[in-house]
Amino acid sequence: MSLTVIGIGPGDTCYLTAQAEAALAAADAVYGYGPYLDRLTLRADQERHASDNRQEGARASAALKHAAHGAKVAIVSGGDPGVFAMAAAICEQIEIGPDAWRALDVVVIPGITAMLAVAARIGAPLGHDFCALSLSDNLKPWPLIERRLDAAAQAGFVIALYNPVSRARPWQFGDAIECLRSHLPPATPVVFGRAVGRPDERVEITTLGAVNATLADMATLVIVGTRETRTIARPGRPPLVYTPRAAAEVSV
Amino acid sequence: MSLTVIGIGPGDTCYLTAQAEAALAAADAVYGYGPYLDRLTLRADQERHASDNRQEGARASAALKHAAHGAKVAIVSGGDPGVFAMAAAICEQIEIGPDAWRALDVVVIPGITAMLAVAARIGAPLGHDFCALSLSDNLKPWPLIERRLDAAAQAGFVIALYNPVSRARPWQFGDAIECLRSHLPPATPVVFGRAVGRPDERVEITTLGAVNATLADMATLVIVGTRETRTIARPGRPPLVYTPRAAAEVSV
Repeated sequence: MSLTVIGIGPGDTCYLTAQAEAALAAADAVYGYGPYLDRLTLRADQERHASDNRQEGARASAALKHAAHGAKVAIVSGGDPGVFAMAAAICEQIEIGPDAWRALDVVVIPGITAMLAVAARIGAPLGHDFCALSLSDNLKPWPLIERRLDAAAQAGFVIALYNPVSRARPWQFGDAIECLRSHLPPATPVVFGRAVGRPDERVEITTLGAVNATLADMATLVIVGTRETRTIARPGRPPLVYTPRAAAEVSV
Repeated sequence: MSLTVIGIGPGDTCYLTAQAEAALAAADAVYGYGPYLDRLTLRADQERHASDNRQEGARASAALKHAAHGAKVAIVSGGDPGVFAMAAAICEQIEIGPDAWRALDVVVIPGITAMLAVAARIGAPLGHDFCALSLSDNLKPWPLIERRLDAAAQAGFVIALYNPVSRARPWQFGDAIECLRSHLPPATPVVFGRAVGRPDERVEITTLGAVNATLADMATLVIVGTRETRTIARPGRPPLVYTPRAAAEVSV
């Protein structure tokens, strides 16, 4: 009679928290996107319900239905379940679903979301005020996304861009970069973090002026700095990128 | 010859990742704010260097100096080291410090930052675009903070407020709430998450119209929803608060 939404972090099980491990071990059945389930070691007595990436609503309602039948059900989410992921999908289904779903014990276990993992790889680009923005216009109109990019850049937030590109959304990331170029100097540091924690991980530092928008793909998280974000060159080591804790003045 | 900046998450060791555990075990010496070190189990052969909360710069340079002398040094940070915490302080010291510090192997291990832990406790309030803003005006001018609150509320970001109050900053949180009331309806859900993971944890749901600003303290993280954020009443259980993944239109 419980549903636990478990954040497993990005790419590698080294990001799993002790709490997430314990919650996984306690589950009778585990739902999730197939590649996320493939990362985990489940016992033979644990049911495995893999589904496609796009099926958040259907996956959430299947897991809720299963839990309402009396099982201890877990549903896993890459990164943190509360950041552009399964926890909101579960809440949406509970709100529109049968009353029995409101009686379930619902627990959310936080995880390392992609922007924290990417930031950690290159220093502290999120060291000052920042925002997280999904570039997917499947669930909101593009003009709203542009308005948020304008607001965030003008107010001096570091910007973490989730879901920059997909096969169905080829031009949005390029337009977002153009939008940010109208507010921020060409030297603004930009970080591309791809597949962090996976064998094919690639983290690259560039500048807003030099961004090649075709380098982002579905597995990429992009961090765009502010006017204050700094790059420290290091002989024989990759540079560190960080945003200072202090800001001296209104930065636009 | 290495410095590892380790995020230990909020309040309880259940939030430690496998990566953070391994990094702690590998350290010769561990630096950190005393209460953070008190949460961890260090071995007798590991040096323990506790310091006061305010001494970020001094703690960072002491740890860097120690690492440059050849030790494997760890410095722990509550939550995530990259979010209003030690990783930026370390980068600042490296930038102004001796050349030898740029030769060090610097590794940042991400952690569960407070907003993710608080959000998980009550549903998915960060389920849509959001920002994280420190209300401390020790390191930036108050007008810049107000400008960011205006921008974030007008553009429809969920807002996570770090450091809402301290003994030296008694009025700032109240002013921030007034600022947000000028943009958002009184019914906007607001979550106060205090000391998450600790025995004295308290998570409360209120509305922007009903916020009592004196309820926040130094250990509180506040999440202010958007016009879209919803509260699901549940018989016999605390409500769920979530922000839907979809936004139908420009929301102000």
